[in-house]
Amino acid sequence: MTKDREEGGVPLDIEGLVANLTLKEKASLLDGAGMWHTRTLDRLGVPAIMMTDGPHGLRKQSAGGDHLGAGETARATCFPPAAGLASSWDTALLTRVGDALGRECRAERVSVLLGPGVNMKRSPLCGRNFEYFSEDPVLAGELGAAFVIGVQSQGVGTSVKHFAANNQETARMSVSAQVDERTLREIYLPAFETVVTMAAPWTVMCSYNRLNGIYTSEDPWLLTELLRDEWGFDGLVVSDWGAVNRREAALPAGLDLEMPSSGGSGARAIVQAVEAGTVTTAQVDRSVRRVLQLVQRAQPALATEVVVDYDAHHALAAEAARESAVLLKNDGAILPLNPTEGGPVAVIGEFARRPRYQGAGSSQVRPTRVDDALSSLRAVLEREVTFAPGYSIEADSAAPELVSEAVTHAQRAATVVLFLGLPPAYESEGYDREDMDLPAHQFDLLAAIYEVNPNVVVVLSNGSVVTVAPWQQQAKALVEGWLLGQAGGSALADLLTGRANPSGKLAETIPMRYEENPTVGAFPGGLGEVRYGEGLLIGYRWYDARRLDVAYPFGHGLSYTTFGYDDLTVTVDNDGAAPRVTVELTVTNTGDRFGKETVQLYVGDPQATVFRPDQELRSFAKVALEPGQSSRVVLKLGPRAFSYWHISLHRWVVEGGAFEIRVGASSRDIRLSAPIELTGEDLTPPLELDAEIGDWLDHPAVGERLHRALEGTPYAGYFADPQHARMFRAIPTIRMARFPGFPVSEGELEDWIGTANH
Amino acid sequence: MTKDREEGGVPLDIEGLVANLTLKEKASLLDGAGMWHTRTLDRLGVPAIMMTDGPHGLRKQSAGGDHLGAGETARATCFPPAAGLASSWDTALLTRVGDALGRECRAERVSVLLGPGVNMKRSPLCGRNFEYFSEDPVLAGELGAAFVIGVQSQGVGTSVKHFAANNQETARMSVSAQVDERTLREIYLPAFETVVTMAAPWTVMCSYNRLNGIYTSEDPWLLTELLRDEWGFDGLVVSDWGAVNRREAALPAGLDLEMPSSGGSGARAIVQAVEAGTVTTAQVDRSVRRVLQLVQRAQPALATEVVVDYDAHHALAAEAARESAVLLKNDGAILPLNPTEGGPVAVIGEFARRPRYQGAGSSQVRPTRVDDALSSLRAVLEREVTFAPGYSIEADSAAPELVSEAVTHAQRAATVVLFLGLPPAYESEGYDREDMDLPAHQFDLLAAIYEVNPNVVVVLSNGSVVTVAPWQQQAKALVEGWLLGQAGGSALADLLTGRANPSGKLAETIPMRYEENPTVGAFPGGLGEVRYGEGLLIGYRWYDARRLDVAYPFGHGLSYTTFGYDDLTVTVDNDGAAPRVTVELTVTNTGDRFGKETVQLYVGDPQATVFRPDQELRSFAKVALEPGQSSRVVLKLGPRAFSYWHISLHRWVVEGGAFEIRVGASSRDIRLSAPIELTGEDLTPPLELDAEIGDWLDHPAVGERLHRALEGTPYAGYFADPQHARMFRAIPTIRMARFPGFPVSEGELEDWIGTANH
Repeated sequence: MTKDREEGGVPLDIEGLVANLTLKEKASLLDGAGMWHTRTLDRLGVPAIMMTDGPHGLRKQSAGGDHLGAGETARATCFPPAAGLASSWDTALLTRVGDALGRECRAERVSVLLGPGVNMKRSPLCGRNFEYFSEDPVLAGELGAAFVIGVQSQGVGTSVKHFAANNQETARMSVSAQVDERTLREIYLPAFETVVTMAAPWTVMCSYNRLNGIYTSEDPWLLTELLRDEWGFDGLVVSDWGAVNRREAALPAGLDLEMPSSGGSGARAIVQAVEAGTVTTAQVDRSVRRVLQLVQRAQPALATEVVVDYDAHHALAAEAARESAVLLKNDGAILPLNPTEGGPVAVIGEFARRPRYQGAGSSQVRPTRVDDALSSLRAVLEREVTFAPGYSIEADSAAPELVSEAVTHAQRAATVVLFLGLPPAYESEGYDREDMDLPAHQFDLLAAIYEVNPNVVVVLSNGSVVTVAPWQQQAKALVEGWLLGQAGGSALADLLTGRANPSGKLAETIPMRYEENPTVGAFPGGLGEVRYGEGLLIGYRWYDARRLDVAYPFGHGLSYTTFGYDDLTVTVDNDGAAPRVTVELTVTNTGDRFGKETVQLYVGDPQATVFRPDQELRSFAKVALEPGQSSRVVLKLGPRAFSYWHISLHRWVVEGGAFEIRVGASSRDIRLSAPIELTGEDLTPPLELDAEIGDWLDHPAVGERLHRALEGTPYAGYFADPQHARMFRAIPTIRMARFPGFPVSEGELEDWIGTANH
Repeated sequence: MTKDREEGGVPLDIEGLVANLTLKEKASLLDGAGMWHTRTLDRLGVPAIMMTDGPHGLRKQSAGGDHLGAGETARATCFPPAAGLASSWDTALLTRVGDALGRECRAERVSVLLGPGVNMKRSPLCGRNFEYFSEDPVLAGELGAAFVIGVQSQGVGTSVKHFAANNQETARMSVSAQVDERTLREIYLPAFETVVTMAAPWTVMCSYNRLNGIYTSEDPWLLTELLRDEWGFDGLVVSDWGAVNRREAALPAGLDLEMPSSGGSGARAIVQAVEAGTVTTAQVDRSVRRVLQLVQRAQPALATEVVVDYDAHHALAAEAARESAVLLKNDGAILPLNPTEGGPVAVIGEFARRPRYQGAGSSQVRPTRVDDALSSLRAVLEREVTFAPGYSIEADSAAPELVSEAVTHAQRAATVVLFLGLPPAYESEGYDREDMDLPAHQFDLLAAIYEVNPNVVVVLSNGSVVTVAPWQQQAKALVEGWLLGQAGGSALADLLTGRANPSGKLAETIPMRYEENPTVGAFPGGLGEVRYGEGLLIGYRWYDARRLDVAYPFGHGLSYTTFGYDDLTVTVDNDGAAPRVTVELTVTNTGDRFGKETVQLYVGDPQATVFRPDQELRSFAKVALEPGQSSRVVLKLGPRAFSYWHISLHRWVVEGGAFEIRVGASSRDIRLSAPIELTGEDLTPPLELDAEIGDWLDHPAVGERLHRALEGTPYAGYFADPQHARMFRAIPTIRMARFPGFPVSEGELEDWIGTANH
């Protein structure tokens, strides 16, 4: 960013402007202009800048646009949405995609791209899951940061969203997410924290919902104390489009810019609040400075011309799609399809011809072009390729003539590649899914095909997980194709035929069935509230804690080659309250073709005195290896890899003891593990009156004395029986001091505390 | 109680006493004397009364006693603890047991029996589950009320405990149960509410723990607003023994009597607080009146002699035990054992000789005598009965010589009756269990026996559920013997041999495995808090919602006969906001021997706009039937059978729509069901600015007008696409009014509201 300022554009004299603007002008600057722009102030030469939706492509509308994805937009490269990109586990790729997006923004004179979305996938039914990365905060945070770094390298801003705890679409504008402190800190905030602290996004977008009763747009703890004071954010906070209720409450909380234009009502509310003395001029100035700073940051990029090579971006979109598809199963190595031999291939399913490659809503991009899998397969395969649509995408039920046509094709084919997926209306911004299933008629089609030809490869198109357990035994191979952007069709053809080797890994668990997911009964809530009852146990943390079989675990993904894991070494570089640990291992491509593997590092804390998930992803790395090639992978862990949020100290702590370092190819395919011992910090609380009597009896300074005092009292008798002793030891000493015949008074105990804590 | 006052004793002049007592005397009356008594005031002739632990028997200690179950106590009949009694589902029986307990209290000049415990069984691991009734609040409440009615019919008081949300032993003295409002109202409070409103217990005992951060002993909402103002409680609130922290906070909150004696510190704190003006004399007087009223209530019973027929009470204890054991499975009708024919019976397991019949802690009773199953079986069976202990109860591992002896017996026997169970140290007041399993060496014993003789009947002795799924296929019959009190041994012999027919039903679900229970990761909490994350989904509500197989469902229990369910009729007696419904059905004993069936009525509310459990127990009845006999069972449902707690109105509501009436022999053996339609109350909120625009568009008074206003604006375009329309409709109107080009201003919308709400 410093670089940008130096590169071009005349810097705004921010302090001079603040000194010269009238209150009304200042207030007007804190409101948008129309749907997508900040306000100009011609009198003082303040230009407007434009923001647009996205973020896996540019959704730049003409004037009079909307924010729900209805209006016409400029063409832009449609990269895979977040659900796809996340499965690449490839931060370098996300930075390159971000960089390309930044260039497209510059070409369209767009200064802020509204994304990435780093909310957690709490429920598989969230309608907007396709716009989010993962059920894991480390993965979402790292990918989000990489994306931001890419976009912003072009001098174009980002807006990490939706801050915070916006994990559903139902009642998203009003629902209060009731999240306990530790869960918020360990699960729902870290991805934002990582993006803010690692990548310094120009803006953060507050969400629509309430968090523990308070609208995030009006929450001074969230927007100021946490975001700025604790995380050091120095950019601008913008409202989600329409997230402002009371402008006079949002401004002092830290919401700088209201979008879209409130038609002047926001500015009027600010002026009135200043006049009434409930908002200070300093608060107004603070936000004005941030708007001006944002406008200034945008100038260098606006001052230079950029020509976009849309063909190169299409190729990058294809590369991203190849990295993002996940090969879930591949029985009998039915994949890759031999490009030249093996008889006719029947491609079945309308999605092969009419791909679904992105979701609906504000992120919907008008692509520069679209590859369909059918044409791409025909281009790649030198075998007979027949096609039958099998179903109509939007249909609620089977069309018998389409089914029988498909069965006929299947019967004649050596291999069937069946494209199934969710119709677009099943998942969208604005509402949640009703269940986790593909349309039932698609299962029936699979069953009918399987009956005549067991060599079935299923390719899925869906933005968030679908149930696969009931039908997947009818498919020899299963490719999770997510939504892969405009080049998804050609990417799938490359993967299916072995021109590319699958390397995607699941960024979310595929459970056996919906009823096993963590949020049953607690999603999407009602009457204004949704309780995050499952607490820390989102995604794999839940399935692990409950020892539940899953269809495919978090982190799973196959390759056409195989990888060996060896020689794990774990070094504690720095022990103590803020430990640093280096984990090294060797990964070898043990198969016969080039491939990539994502090494995942999970940490377990089996000795913690508080409940902790069995294991949590703490680091990962994707390595590319030629056949036989090895690579030494080095993963660094800082204090946060071992810490938990302590709910009475209200801070992160590393509790000493044994930790388990686990390295694997998925959360349930741990290949190497090693225990380590960390000293951590001393969390023993000082002796207090209300500590349990057992703690008193064990205390080096007072224990012996208390034991002696108890001798000869009826209480000494408890020690004769382990059960009684255990019960007695659990009573707070202050309570015991009230009991008849207890030999030490409250006053005396207080004196003892003085001794003990010195 | 009115009757008591008339019957005997000289009434205390309560108002005269309040007028004549000094502040110091009053304060002293609010403190106990020693461990078990209230204070005497000789100057004014106020006698002391005695309270004792229990409640499934009398635990009257000599002077200098304790509250953890260590000291010696007077002999008393040990009835089955609550976990046993609850499985009888027999309210009349509980009243008779209560009546007998009341008589024993009178004989021992005890005025208040400290029970029943009606806390919910939230986790199978709670160490005190054996003292609680059920995972269902209706069952616990009805049984608790019946018990209270029985005891109090003798002019002896009860103390319903532990109020409230004391559902674990870990950190019970300090932990804060974090429970959301609706869960508290629908799950954790109703049993107390039922006991208070149906049975008017003389006292309520506050718990040790905190509830949502506030010690229950200091919670004015809990002890006064809810308990007295809302439920109409007019008795006395006593502290659990040692539950008082700050007497000066507890008194104004509504804690009348501190127990045991605080040695004067409680009284001093009260006097000081009055002098400092933080506690009023009126608050002191209020509690003094309640103590005097309690003392007065106790006088009539103390004024008369009672002779207890301990033999009759033993017989009642045996009857209660017979009603409480649950026949879980009985493959091939291996039970009942033929009393005279069939070859040798090998009784194996130390528990047959040395029965475990109650739990440890403050409820531990010194029984008048104890029946063991081995002697009882030998007395009943005219077959050869051999015995081998098989294991030592307290041992951690198998004793090979005991196992081989047992196997030898099993080899020679026609049938093996194997007694397994939890060692006493596994479950107790004061701490929670570590897992849900029997000691591993007991499984091994079963496996060894099964190998030589598949005709195995397993009888369990345990206070709370144990895992049975991993080993139960090695038992043809399985009898859940809980803890059955001092006559449990003879009761089991009667049931095993068919002298009595099992009729117990599970009052708690037996899950397949621990990891499937609702509280994994949220029990027992840590660092001072336990989050009730599962919310409403306690027990069967959870297993139903998650479609989980269970080992045995809530309400399950077999009989040696069979029952038919027919002719369900459901009549809505009173529709509207407070509906009343009558459910009738015919139950027929379709087998060939006398038996009892507990008919269970569950209500489902599939159309609710909020999440509700699939079904909830709302009524039940136990009927006794001769072979071939039929009985018409009539069950009445009031408004609460259909209502839920509305979290924004903060009250119970009956939402209109279809309800499902389900009648069955268990929660998963529904025999008859019928839908009904109830009008309920109109819960449509008045039109407000922040209602969703869809609600505005659908509103009869303003919808048409808003549609017209939107015509020609860009927003009208949303209606062309169902997805866009759905997203648009979900936006609060007040937010939409800020959007560029929205045709109606906030001011105009406010005018429209005036029209709409008239």
